[in-house]
Amino acid sequence: MSNPPTSPAGADAQILAELSEFLRIPSISTLPEHHADVAQAAQWIATFLTRAGLDHVAVLTTARHPLVYADWLHAAGQPTVLIYGHYDVQPADPLDQWQTPPFEPTLRDGNLYARGAADDKGQIYAQLKAVATLLQAGGQLPINVRFLIEGEEEVDGQGIEDYVKHHARDLACDAVLISDTPMFAEGHPAITIGLRGAVFAELTVTTARQDLHSGLYGGAAPNAVNILCALVARLTDAAGRVTIPGFYDAVRPAPEAERAAWRRLPFDEEQYRQHEVGAPALLADPEFSVLERVWARPTLDLNGISGGFTGVGSKAIIPARASCKVSMRLGPDQDPAAIAAAFADYIATLCPATATAAVQVLGTAAPVLLPTDAPAMQAATAALAEVFGAPPVFTRMGGSIPIVSLFVQQLQAPCIMMGFGLPDDNLHAPNEKMKFAHVVGGIAAAQSFLRRMRS
Amino acid sequence: MSNPPTSPAGADAQILAELSEFLRIPSISTLPEHHADVAQAAQWIATFLTRAGLDHVAVLTTARHPLVYADWLHAAGQPTVLIYGHYDVQPADPLDQWQTPPFEPTLRDGNLYARGAADDKGQIYAQLKAVATLLQAGGQLPINVRFLIEGEEEVDGQGIEDYVKHHARDLACDAVLISDTPMFAEGHPAITIGLRGAVFAELTVTTARQDLHSGLYGGAAPNAVNILCALVARLTDAAGRVTIPGFYDAVRPAPEAERAAWRRLPFDEEQYRQHEVGAPALLADPEFSVLERVWARPTLDLNGISGGFTGVGSKAIIPARASCKVSMRLGPDQDPAAIAAAFADYIATLCPATATAAVQVLGTAAPVLLPTDAPAMQAATAALAEVFGAPPVFTRMGGSIPIVSLFVQQLQAPCIMMGFGLPDDNLHAPNEKMKFAHVVGGIAAAQSFLRRMRS
Repeated sequence: MSNPPTSPAGADAQILAELSEFLRIPSISTLPEHHADVAQAAQWIATFLTRAGLDHVAVLTTARHPLVYADWLHAAGQPTVLIYGHYDVQPADPLDQWQTPPFEPTLRDGNLYARGAADDKGQIYAQLKAVATLLQAGGQLPINVRFLIEGEEEVDGQGIEDYVKHHARDLACDAVLISDTPMFAEGHPAITIGLRGAVFAELTVTTARQDLHSGLYGGAAPNAVNILCALVARLTDAAGRVTIPGFYDAVRPAPEAERAAWRRLPFDEEQYRQHEVGAPALLADPEFSVLERVWARPTLDLNGISGGFTGVGSKAIIPARASCKVSMRLGPDQDPAAIAAAFADYIATLCPATATAAVQVLGTAAPVLLPTDAPAMQAATAALAEVFGAPPVFTRMGGSIPIVSLFVQQLQAPCIMMGFGLPDDNLHAPNEKMKFAHVVGGIAAAQSFLRRMRS
Repeated sequence: MSNPPTSPAGADAQILAELSEFLRIPSISTLPEHHADVAQAAQWIATFLTRAGLDHVAVLTTARHPLVYADWLHAAGQPTVLIYGHYDVQPADPLDQWQTPPFEPTLRDGNLYARGAADDKGQIYAQLKAVATLLQAGGQLPINVRFLIEGEEEVDGQGIEDYVKHHARDLACDAVLISDTPMFAEGHPAITIGLRGAVFAELTVTTARQDLHSGLYGGAAPNAVNILCALVARLTDAAGRVTIPGFYDAVRPAPEAERAAWRRLPFDEEQYRQHEVGAPALLADPEFSVLERVWARPTLDLNGISGGFTGVGSKAIIPARASCKVSMRLGPDQDPAAIAAAFADYIATLCPATATAAVQVLGTAAPVLLPTDAPAMQAATAALAEVFGAPPVFTRMGGSIPIVSLFVQQLQAPCIMMGFGLPDDNLHAPNEKMKFAHVVGGIAAAQSFLRRMRS
C-alpha cells in the first residue's frame, strides 16, 4: 500500500496527533458517569468540521447523546454522499487486561491501541480527514457531502433513529458511506453487504425477598442463581444452536452461490481458533461453515451474568435474585420483535413455580442484506482496489449496525460499508487497536471514492 | 420468660450498651479490608474478660485472625466447661436492603438489628456476660470455665483448627458449650444435636484469552457464561436433588423415631414459605418433609455467579471467563473430601471441549450427630426449661459448624449446642437481628447451666 497521494510528508504525524486527541475522550455512551465525555467527543467533531470548512455544522441535541451534522453542497449537478459514523465507544472493562490504558492511545508495532481505535473513532476520523484534506488542497469537493455522526451506536441509537425518521428529506442522498466494518484480512479489503440483526435483553429471576442462609434454608428455599442457570441452559445446545421454539422459522438460507464464494475465501479455521478466538475448540455445527455461522446464522449469547456473592472467599447464601444479559444475533429475515417475544414466551414457559422471571428488551436491530449492483458499490470497489492493491471481497458481518436498515428504509439509498479495520482489532474487548496505516489508507480510499462518485 | 435472677434493674441497659459496642465493630473476616476490624473485635473480648477477672487472657495470633483464650480454673474437683463462639461476621452486602445500617445496632420492636446480632456476637456476648456477672456477684464460678473464641468461623476456621489439634490437652474439659444455633421457635427452646457438613467450592470456566464481540464472533466462539450455566444446570434437578453421580451413596437416613418426632413439631409449611423464605413456592421433594430437607438432607446451592458485563445497559460481548461459588450441605455420614472429589470429577466429565473448567475447594466441614444421653445435655435441658419456661426440643440444623466435629474428635467431650436465636434472624442476610430478651435470657440460661454442671 503506497502513501495516500493527498498526504504530504509529515501529514502522518498530524493524523496521529489529531486521532489520538479524539481517542483520549472516554465517550462511553452506556455509562451515565461518562455523559459529559460523550458530549465532548461530539464537540470535538463539530470543531474539526468547522475548521475544515464544512457548512451548517451543528451539534444536535437528542434525549441522550447528540448528533453531529454538517454538509458541503456546492458541487452543482453532482451526486450527494451521506457519511455516517459514531463517536461513542464501548466500556473499557476489564481494565486490568489492557496492556496500555484504554484512553491513552499508544502506537505499538504499527497499531494504534485505544478503546474506539477501530470501533469507530479511527474509521470516522478517516472520513473527516479525507474531506478536510480535499478542501484544504483545493477548496472544493468532487461531489456533495453530508456528515451525520451519532453518539449512541453502542447503546440504543434512539436519537439518530428519531432524527432520520423525521428528517429523511433533509438527508437526501445518492449513497450512504459507512466505515464501521473490518476488511476480510490484511491485504483483502472488503465491502460488507450483509449484517445480522440483534435482540438485546435482560433476564432477571427472583425467588425470595432476600438472600437466605444456605445452611439453614438449603433444601427448602429455591435458589435464584440455580434457577437462572437452569433456564439459560435450555436456550442453546452444546453446538450453540438456539433451542427457543420457532427461533429458526423465518431464517432465509444463504444462496448456494454465496456459500460457494465464502468457501473460496482464504480462511484457516485452526489459525482463527488459535489466534483470533483463543479457545480450546470452536463451537461445532457440521451443517454450516465457521464463516457462515458468524456472518449469517442466528445466535444466542449471554453477555454477562450476576447474582449472589461474588467477592473474595465464600459466603453461605441462597441468592434471592440473579440476572443475565442476552444478545441474540439474527439472520435474514428474522424479525427482532417476533424473536424477542418468542424468547420471553419461552422463558415464561420454562420458569418453575419456585421463581418469577422477568424479561426486559434493551434494544433490537433488523438484519440487512444489500444489492451489489449499485453504482456506488462499484465506485467503492474501485477505490479500495486502488488504495489497498487488491479488489475487495463482498462479505457479510455478524455484528449489527441498526442504522443501516434505517438508512435503507428511510433514505432509499444504498449503504456502502467500506471499512478499514482488521478482524483481530479486539472490538468491545481489552486492547482494541487499529492498524495506523489503515487509518492513512482509509483517508485515501474515501477521497478516491468521492472522486469516483463524480459523474 | 422472667427476668434473669442475676440481672438487677438497670442491667439491661448496660447489656444493650455493651453488646452494641461489640456489634459496631465490622469484623468481616472474609474481606481483607476489614482485617484491622476483626483484630479490634478480638481485643474487645480480651478486654472484657480481663475486666471480668478471668485468668490467662490471651489474644493468640494465627495466620489470619486471632483466637481469644481465657480461663477460670479455681473450682477444685469440679467439672470444666469450654465455652466456644466466634466474633467474626458475614459481609453485609447488599447494603441497600438494610433498614438501618448493619454496623449501627438499632433496637426496634424488641429486636436488636445488626450484622452479627445473632451470628454470633449476641450469643457469645451472653456467655461472656454470664460469667462476668457471676464473678462480679460472688467472686467465684460454680465450676471451671475456659473460653476459646475465634474470628474465622465465617471463613475457613483454619486458625482454631490448628490450635485445637496442637493444644487438645491444654483445652481439657468435660463439655463444650456453644451458642451459635437458633431455638425451634419463639417459646420453643432447642438443643441442636445434628449439623450438616459442608463443601464450599469455586468453579471457573474459561473459553478464550479475552472477551470477544458477540456480533463478530457469535456462532463460532464458545461462551464462558453459557457453558458455566450449562454445567451447573446439570448439578441439580427441579426439586433441588443433587445429580452428581454417587452423591447420596453415604447418606445415613434419619431413624424413623427421629422423623416421627420432627413430624410432631409445630411447623406451618405455608407460614414458613411465606414469612421466612418469602418464595412463590418451596422446593418440592415428596420423599422428605421440609424440616428433614433443611436439617438432615444434603443440598447443592450456588452462592453467587459472575461473568462478563453486568453494568447498566448492554455490552455486546462473548465473555471469556465466568465463575460461581457453590456450597454443598452434607448429611451424616457423607465425607466432605469424597464429595468435593465427586463434584470436581463430575465437572471434568461434563466440561465440553470448547472450555476449561477449574474447581477450587474453599472449605469443608464434616457432618455431626451428637448423643443425647450425656450429663451435660441433661444440665442444658434443665437450664433452658428453667429460663425459657418450656423443655427444649432436640433438633438438627442445616448449617455447618466445622469446629463442632473437631471438638468431638479432639477433646472427646460432648458439644452442647444451646442457642438463643430465632429462625427468622436473617443470618447472612440483610437486617440480621436478635431478640433482645433472648440475649438477657441467654445470660441466665448459661448461668443456670454452669450451676447445674456442679457435681
